[in-house]
Amino acid sequence: MTSSGEQQRLGLDLLVNVDRDGDVPLRAQLEDQLRDGIRRGALHGGTALPSTRALAAELGVSRGVVVEAYAQLAAEGFLVARPGAATRVASVAVHDPEPAKEEVLAPPVRFDLRTLAADLSAFPRRAWGAALRDALRELPDASLNYGDRVGAGELRTVLASYLGRARGVAAEPRDVIVVTGIMQAVSLLARTLRRAGVERVGVEDPGFPPHRMVFAREGLRVVPIPVDEGGLVVDGLDAAGIGAVLCTPTHQYPRGMALAPERRAALVEWAAARDGWIIEDDYDGEYRFDRDPVGALQALAPARVTYLGSASKTLAPALRLGWMVVAPELVEGVSEAKALADGGTPVLDQLALARFIEHGELDRHLRRMRGVYRRRRDTLVSAAERWVPEVELEGISAGLHVSARLPEGVVLGPLLSRAWEGGIGVFGYEHDGVARVLLGYANLPEPSVEPAIRALAQIGFGTST
Amino acid sequence: MTSSGEQQRLGLDLLVNVDRDGDVPLRAQLEDQLRDGIRRGALHGGTALPSTRALAAELGVSRGVVVEAYAQLAAEGFLVARPGAATRVASVAVHDPEPAKEEVLAPPVRFDLRTLAADLSAFPRRAWGAALRDALRELPDASLNYGDRVGAGELRTVLASYLGRARGVAAEPRDVIVVTGIMQAVSLLARTLRRAGVERVGVEDPGFPPHRMVFAREGLRVVPIPVDEGGLVVDGLDAAGIGAVLCTPTHQYPRGMALAPERRAALVEWAAARDGWIIEDDYDGEYRFDRDPVGALQALAPARVTYLGSASKTLAPALRLGWMVVAPELVEGVSEAKALADGGTPVLDQLALARFIEHGELDRHLRRMRGVYRRRRDTLVSAAERWVPEVELEGISAGLHVSARLPEGVVLGPLLSRAWEGGIGVFGYEHDGVARVLLGYANLPEPSVEPAIRALAQIGFGTST
Repeated sequence: MTSSGEQQRLGLDLLVNVDRDGDVPLRAQLEDQLRDGIRRGALHGGTALPSTRALAAELGVSRGVVVEAYAQLAAEGFLVARPGAATRVASVAVHDPEPAKEEVLAPPVRFDLRTLAADLSAFPRRAWGAALRDALRELPDASLNYGDRVGAGELRTVLASYLGRARGVAAEPRDVIVVTGIMQAVSLLARTLRRAGVERVGVEDPGFPPHRMVFAREGLRVVPIPVDEGGLVVDGLDAAGIGAVLCTPTHQYPRGMALAPERRAALVEWAAARDGWIIEDDYDGEYRFDRDPVGALQALAPARVTYLGSASKTLAPALRLGWMVVAPELVEGVSEAKALADGGTPVLDQLALARFIEHGELDRHLRRMRGVYRRRRDTLVSAAERWVPEVELEGISAGLHVSARLPEGVVLGPLLSRAWEGGIGVFGYEHDGVARVLLGYANLPEPSVEPAIRALAQIGFGTST
Repeated sequence: MTSSGEQQRLGLDLLVNVDRDGDVPLRAQLEDQLRDGIRRGALHGGTALPSTRALAAELGVSRGVVVEAYAQLAAEGFLVARPGAATRVASVAVHDPEPAKEEVLAPPVRFDLRTLAADLSAFPRRAWGAALRDALRELPDASLNYGDRVGAGELRTVLASYLGRARGVAAEPRDVIVVTGIMQAVSLLARTLRRAGVERVGVEDPGFPPHRMVFAREGLRVVPIPVDEGGLVVDGLDAAGIGAVLCTPTHQYPRGMALAPERRAALVEWAAARDGWIIEDDYDGEYRFDRDPVGALQALAPARVTYLGSASKTLAPALRLGWMVVAPELVEGVSEAKALADGGTPVLDQLALARFIEHGELDRHLRRMRGVYRRRRDTLVSAAERWVPEVELEGISAGLHVSARLPEGVVLGPLLSRAWEGGIGVFGYEHDGVARVLLGYANLPEPSVEPAIRALAQIGFGTST
């Protein structure tokens, strides 16, 4: 064994420490400790882990325990497993749901290409302030008490109608539950599904890692389902033995395509045949530029699909306002989970949103922003053609980001390090040996788009190194 | 077997249906189904359950499974077990965390004696509106993004200082986590403690039923710890084999006394000796009238105590703003649980609260309301002496409610039914054969206090029937 292998072993020795007499299964202990080590930074991106055989011997556990733990962490995006090579810690901590403390010390972001939020500088402060003020003035005293845990009746009615006309969702107010965002919606669903007996849940691969963590925390096994050019590979669902699947049919995250029409039908058929549950994460469905509108999948099978949306990509994440249209059979369970989780969403904020939508302010804001984002997208596509012709853009026709497939030979980790050091805030990931970078333009003013792409070109974004 | 016994059996037959091949333990299945049945109203208050022996035989499970399930549901407040008599469904659905749909159809509340909130008519709308407006105006664009999941830095600093001077809490901003209320705080702690290996948690008996439900949902065993005239019986903790205990040392809920000084010391000694965790629920600690201030227990042992508070009893529950000062060893776990639960508390509301406290508005409001509540309390005590002299008032010196011990022979269920039918909103409970009613005066204007007590007297509140 090489000396770096030796070091590695010493590192894991200190990090991992299974307790055979405890109640927690050995696999779960190992998973938790590795996951925590990666999140704490004790295990750096790129670190090669010992083979399953070696670690099993070291810990005195069966090899299957280690294999399962590695597989689960790979499914959650913490590890990267490649056939015939060592399993490594994932090279980029993409979308850590909890910003690391060190972020404060990072160099200031000159170009913000992160895929997080709407354009924060365009937040309609005046109109939102007016909606809040009206809500506060008109609110009866009794509404200052604990409200309906599943959401203010007024907002649920307004949302049912808005989602119907804007996203084609088949929603009755009684099935609408107001939450603080898609993260909470996934958490409530995870608990409800687990209690309903679901043990395994499918997620898109690649997908959004924090959702995988939420499922894992609720005791569900996360099963990655591949994504190809047509979106989620629905054929794979039957064999996966899952009771539910979370997907982004309108604009796959992170790759950007819409789910192919025949797959939408097949997905719904799977759910009907297997009594499976579909979770539709419609995180940026309001934005499309040059393709026909894709309505929510939910309308095809309201009994099997739970639809999730939020104001984070239309207004601002800081508002913490989101919504679910829950499959009727799950409404009771999700309602109870919501009541016990936080006692309900803040009432004033809900009533402000209801007014904001009812008075046409959201429509007005979206009309304006669609134009703004479209121009940025057009500029970004031209700039990329000019400065990094080797980079292939995907998923350009909708949403607030495009996915950039890097030329073969570009090594992602060092590229992203150079980007962040140079003040370019950008996320990327590797999948099946292909490196991709997400180019978000929500917080990139149009005059900055071309300079941002040029800056990326200068650090080797488009050329193998 | 009598015909009503027969009916009962048929009822449970339909209700309870254990699956021997599933992964969920039989005890948990039985508990869940009975709990759901009670919450749905399928099992009415007062219904006698079959004996453990009979139900075990009926279901084909061991008697121990039924004994354990009954004990757990009794601990949670759903069932009432009396030695030598049938176990019954608890007679009053006290404090259902999710208001029943039928509440809408109930007669209007003429006199609101419920112990839920602060005086909603006194909510400082103008000052709160100004704080919101200032926060919205001064907020940098970047703060409209996802914020720090554990709370806005500004508010955490303000809270650490406020809790220090107002409640004697020893708080560093880094240990303060902003939540949406005490319910969420209990939920986050439950998850954190469970992951840290805690299996059994003590709660005050009598106590606040929703917290028991939250613990049970997170897979913790709930162990009731008796309360006597001196508050929580700390002597019982060692034998209870618990890893944590939730208590209300400043104003025991529901009985109203402060924890006796020698017990405060003993509680902290228990935690130190057993590495136990104390959860201090300081739900209404801002209000005391004629006793010396009781500072937070937390200051005695910040390493073992996590302190919980909220704005629900000082401003309004609808704001959904609360806070925790977390024992440092648990901060990381609670922070992660918060991030995964909802992605953080709404930022604007947090910044409004920070301004509201900093500008002295909370102090001003509390000074005014302490006088208001004290006068109501005085009037209530006099009215009770006059109209229901047989009723013994307890816990009158602090908080926003007093506990009224009814004379022997008063049967609680019918009394509460008559009250609600007559438009008197009031909660009550039976414990160790003693019936008590909680007289909350937060939402009872002073001119209504005497008429409310007189109305209670007229329906037999003070006389055995």
